Amino acid sequence: MVERIDSLTNKKIKDTAALHNRRQRAKQGRFVAEGLRLGEMAAAADWPLCYALYTAELAVQSRGAALLEQLAAKDCPCYETSPTAFAKAAATQSPQGILIVMEQRPVSLTDLAQVDKACRAGVPDQETQAPFFVVLDGLQDPGNVGTIIRTADAAGATGMILTKGSVDIYDDKTVRATMGSLFHLPVVNGVSVAELIAFAHELDLQLFATALDAAAQPHFTCDFQRGTAIAFGNEGNGVSEALLAAAQKVYIPMYGQAESLNAATSAAAILYEMVRQRYYKLS
Amino acid sequence: MVERIDSLTNKKIKDTAALHNRRQRAKQGRFVAEGLRLGEMAAAADWPLCYALYTAELAVQSRGAALLEQLAAKDCPCYETSPTAFAKAAATQSPQGILIVMEQRPVSLTDLAQVDKACRAGVPDQETQAPFFVVLDGLQDPGNVGTIIRTADAAGATGMILTKGSVDIYDDKTVRATMGSLFHLPVVNGVSVAELIAFAHELDLQLFATALDAAAQPHFTCDFQRGTAIAFGNEGNGVSEALLAAAQKVYIPMYGQAESLNAATSAAAILYEMVRQRYYKLS
Repeated sequence: MVERIDSLTNKKIKDTAALHNRRQRAKQGRFVAEGLRLGEMAAAADWPLCYALYTAELAVQSRGAALLEQLAAKDCPCYETSPTAFAKAAATQSPQGILIVMEQRPVSLTDLAQVDKACRAGVPDQETQAPFFVVLDGLQDPGNVGTIIRTADAAGATGMILTKGSVDIYDDKTVRATMGSLFHLPVVNGVSVAELIAFAHELDLQLFATALDAAAQPHFTCDFQRGTAIAFGNEGNGVSEALLAAAQKVYIPMYGQAESLNAATSAAAILYEMVRQRYYKLS
Repeated sequence: MVERIDSLTNKKIKDTAALHNRRQRAKQGRFVAEGLRLGEMAAAADWPLCYALYTAELAVQSRGAALLEQLAAKDCPCYETSPTAFAKAAATQSPQGILIVMEQRPVSLTDLAQVDKACRAGVPDQETQAPFFVVLDGLQDPGNVGTIIRTADAAGATGMILTKGSVDIYDDKTVRATMGSLFHLPVVNGVSVAELIAFAHELDLQLFATALDAAAQPHFTCDFQRGTAIAFGNEGNGVSEALLAAAQKVYIPMYGQAESLNAATSAAAILYEMVRQRYYKLS
């Protein structure tokens, strides 16, 4: 028996709509994944689901119906919702008739230290690789952060660390830009620079920080085969002074007239140099 | 003597506001660069300026005043504008009190073939490098396209080619995301696949296309030291069939659970592998 929600003042609609606000997300300990593709990845992931809202239109499409079946099989309550109530609960203008409310799942540095890299899918020799952590220091753009989570996942990074003052990883735009990688890659939030330095020391990681400083080391000459943590700063101010002081400075060489690179671009260039050194280095 | 614009119905305000629409941009043959940083890059570039609008608030800041002086020195008419009229003309909510209207400057494939790479600033041996062109096939996201133009500039690419049906490079969001690289890197718009193939043939370029196809060649194993054109497709559909059929397929290896990469991320990974092969290859 399907429960149907028509009222704009229904508690689930109001609670879901509130999740587009950071403070409300923290208070409820939940967040929203919207859209078919993200919904499919949420349903397939090993992650606690709270409930889903969907429209009648979604339920009659084969892909939508399959997703609802998958959610039901995971005991996720699914509520058919009128178009107006659904629009109130959704963040985007075209949420494709499905949104899933999920539990936030905090990861600590202690958890991260215990992540078994061998558990991560990938090439056969991946378990022999030293850990590689991506640090985001004060990044504010949700799309950039989500894109970097997706890139780090693709590059086989061990995990991510966001310093205090960074954007919320459960922001709607961040979740969307991760394209599901948030459900796979462990991400630690709200870490202080002192905690990060202690973590790097404990795991015997070399700590790098990107800097717009031609006296720094070009990233191509860094040895990324060793255990590594590398920090990217926010576009306006770069990596914070405290972190720069504790790290080896790295820069990405530039040849045209561009003066800097977008944060997600910098991360892609360096993470794929890490991939090359680890999996494509010619002997 | 400074001319001041207060009226919302002033022709300059209406013409400028219209430039946020693609058809109007094409009709007027102009586009808008908004904000201090972009304005400074526009003023410094070798590019025809039509006029600038600014607020009284900008003119009293030292950076703003310096920019207005720079524009005056280039004979660009500058109009002080009331806050409401300025807001009507601007695309963004915080345009920092300055917007510059610029001429569109169409570049043809013939122009591109004649681009003298040695003219581009960079490392001493750059003129000895074979040309490298970045092709965007049907990309729709203005931010992605702008970010790729910025990355291609930084990586020292020779030029960019956008196929028919791609986003307008003069879109406000594209211009903003290029961070000024649009004023430096030659970008050709609206090219057909047949024209692209003929161009690659004429310049003896190897033509690559990215594909989510594990049977394709990993980008790390491509020889990017030769003259090259490499195509990236739109995120939904990838590179078009016609172009794929004429190109060598390349893929970016992925190790985590991410199924694909953002277009700007893919471009960054491949363009920086090009940089490595050309400038950082160990002998």
